[in-house]
Amino acid sequence: MGLIKKPVTGMKDVLPLEMEVREYVIGVIKETYHAFGFSTIETPSVEHIENLSSKQGGENEKLIFKILKRGEKLNLNEASCEKDLVDCGLRYDLTLPLVRYYSNNSSKISTPFKALQIGSVWRADNPQKGRYRQFYQCDIDILGEPSNLAEIELILATTTTLSKLGFSGFEIRINDRRILKAMAAYSGFEEENYDQVFIALDKMDKIKAEGVEAELLENGFSKEMVSKYLNLFQEISDAENGLAFLVETLGEYLEDAVSSELKEIIDSVSQTKTADFQMVFDPSLVRGMSYYTGTIFEIAIPAFHASCGGGGRYDKMVGKFTGTDVPACGFSIGFERIIMLLMEQGFQIPKKKQKVAFLIEKGIAKEEICKIITEAQKERESGVQVSLMRMNKNKKFQIEQLEKEGYTVFKKFFREALK
Amino acid sequence: MGLIKKPVTGMKDVLPLEMEVREYVIGVIKETYHAFGFSTIETPSVEHIENLSSKQGGENEKLIFKILKRGEKLNLNEASCEKDLVDCGLRYDLTLPLVRYYSNNSSKISTPFKALQIGSVWRADNPQKGRYRQFYQCDIDILGEPSNLAEIELILATTTTLSKLGFSGFEIRINDRRILKAMAAYSGFEEENYDQVFIALDKMDKIKAEGVEAELLENGFSKEMVSKYLNLFQEISDAENGLAFLVETLGEYLEDAVSSELKEIIDSVSQTKTADFQMVFDPSLVRGMSYYTGTIFEIAIPAFHASCGGGGRYDKMVGKFTGTDVPACGFSIGFERIIMLLMEQGFQIPKKKQKVAFLIEKGIAKEEICKIITEAQKERESGVQVSLMRMNKNKKFQIEQLEKEGYTVFKKFFREALK
Repeated sequence: MGLIKKPVTGMKDVLPLEMEVREYVIGVIKETYHAFGFSTIETPSVEHIENLSSKQGGENEKLIFKILKRGEKLNLNEASCEKDLVDCGLRYDLTLPLVRYYSNNSSKISTPFKALQIGSVWRADNPQKGRYRQFYQCDIDILGEPSNLAEIELILATTTTLSKLGFSGFEIRINDRRILKAMAAYSGFEEENYDQVFIALDKMDKIKAEGVEAELLENGFSKEMVSKYLNLFQEISDAENGLAFLVETLGEYLEDAVSSELKEIIDSVSQTKTADFQMVFDPSLVRGMSYYTGTIFEIAIPAFHASCGGGGRYDKMVGKFTGTDVPACGFSIGFERIIMLLMEQGFQIPKKKQKVAFLIEKGIAKEEICKIITEAQKERESGVQVSLMRMNKNKKFQIEQLEKEGYTVFKKFFREALK
Repeated sequence: MGLIKKPVTGMKDVLPLEMEVREYVIGVIKETYHAFGFSTIETPSVEHIENLSSKQGGENEKLIFKILKRGEKLNLNEASCEKDLVDCGLRYDLTLPLVRYYSNNSSKISTPFKALQIGSVWRADNPQKGRYRQFYQCDIDILGEPSNLAEIELILATTTTLSKLGFSGFEIRINDRRILKAMAAYSGFEEENYDQVFIALDKMDKIKAEGVEAELLENGFSKEMVSKYLNLFQEISDAENGLAFLVETLGEYLEDAVSSELKEIIDSVSQTKTADFQMVFDPSLVRGMSYYTGTIFEIAIPAFHASCGGGGRYDKMVGKFTGTDVPACGFSIGFERIIMLLMEQGFQIPKKKQKVAFLIEKGIAKEEICKIITEAQKERESGVQVSLMRMNKNKKFQIEQLEKEGYTVFKKFFREALK
């Protein structure tokens, strides 16, 4: 017959050792986020194709796994385009389904609504090391909270979680979409060109100011505007207090409330944090998703030269479903990256239970089996993990394999007598 | 714009209260199965369409959510049938992916391999109360263990889990596909008609012996054969020891080993069980899946008039992938049914953490906010769940909503002073 043994392209089988780390991390995440009052929820993996294609997902909308209509609705002969064949698809993130969920269930949940989601998302991206087509996302979101209490809670909860997972000395970089826009306006860019400017700026970490300058000039912007814009970043970075300098420089290009609220977030978090990290105002932080309307933030872990998660405020998305905007803010941990980091560092799970193997020789008497099982049941009750298994002919190899899986105690039961 | 608020047909949004029960049950399941030496694994939700359509899934193969090819592989104009459009689909169970996983990773895992899987599966079935198109399955399987030690461990682990979830007085009904066949052969049915006979027999619980008789006669089987067959069930049920009676009656139609091993399972489990349940030999137990090759079993909980899970031995499935058969046996808990039962009974989670809401009036001074957050952080450290939130104008309604979500303590912070 010959069935296919490999997983589908870009997806992976999770082996027991990695799975133990994943389960441990999920446990820490849930415990910490619950302590901050977030409630776990779940949405279906499958979403309406109309919602998935509604321009909320940016580039991700090009990567949707689309699902074929079923039964009478599927009419192959008359189908002339993809739309005729497809009615739903796999979710590419957890934010869009959350907003649909909130819109659908708002009468049944309290306001503000603090949601925790841990689940798979799917993107038909080019597979590469550490990037899969099915992967976990782990998001917390607060809906219905207009004040920056939302940002403060999200950042404290996320950093406390990272700290409990052993991370320290990291940064939370923070910015506001409105600061991005004000800086572009101040430098003379037209609003219709902001996206182009921000796409270049987003690469600052990788291609440095020179690279951003080259890209902007190539896009046809004047040398004067580009210089003014990039000088601003340099001046902020040179200033003793970057944010204060920026406020003074931008003047009426920036509403007072934007900078004072951002300062309040940075100050409140810095004064109340329990984890070891720095809050850093980063005027070059862009965050790709176009749905962000205010604050944006990102985790930078020194050991990992890319973002390990991020989020921001998206006050306009609920309105796309209900017609009435609801303030919303979320923070997503880069779950797969964190797992990869921990696995690479040979992470050991604390307080792991002892794993004991009972190896039973073939042909042992029935009454002996019952005694062995009873002994195993007692050990299990006392909190030990006991696995009963037949002793293989090659005992040595069997024990070596089991040791790799974390078994440390081997109890052998032979045919002649219990030893 | 008007996006769609409802989930796709037949799928559901899980609200926080049900989610708490689900998370608690998953916790108990994992802890118990780990104590028995099962390792959690995960396979992708998406499987090759070739594997999903390989006749291992019986009727479920008609219910696959199929996924459209992507990029260059999708050629709408030249597509003449579904096969041209589809390359993968959502898994309809966890057994087929497990067997693919085992075949793919056998060099990296120990033998016997004891796997625990908890995950979503998808079936485009007609939705009805308690039956969704996306639902959780929870399976344990032992691969590479030919002896009935596998069945004994699976049944003990599953019943211990059910017991820890508060179920008692239930039955594990057990049979063997080879007994089913021997009884049919003894009664004079031809092998090619077994499936037809078993489909009728499978309805015994619902339509009783009379209904089964009517269906078999309608299918054209002789009155003599049908009577002989149904009398056998009556005689087994009347006998003091049904299994012993059956062995004696069937004579050479049934291999000795089949009945002695079945007896061994019943005796060993009965003697070593810690949960309150009965092992019952049930010669009318069929279990639908055609891949079963030996023992089959099912959970019957009095409060629920349908199977709450089941499983059996399927020694021939790994061979479909690798060419070499590997003994395999699994037990699946009816996760969604158990959740439904617990929810209907108003299940209360034991040792639930206290939920405290800090309600903060709008416009409170910044310094006060920091004090409040610090207080919340301390309470969280001590194991309490604390949620900070803005005080709504309608405090009474807000508190009522929060009470529904399990909040019991409300601390209010007003603008003028900390009270």
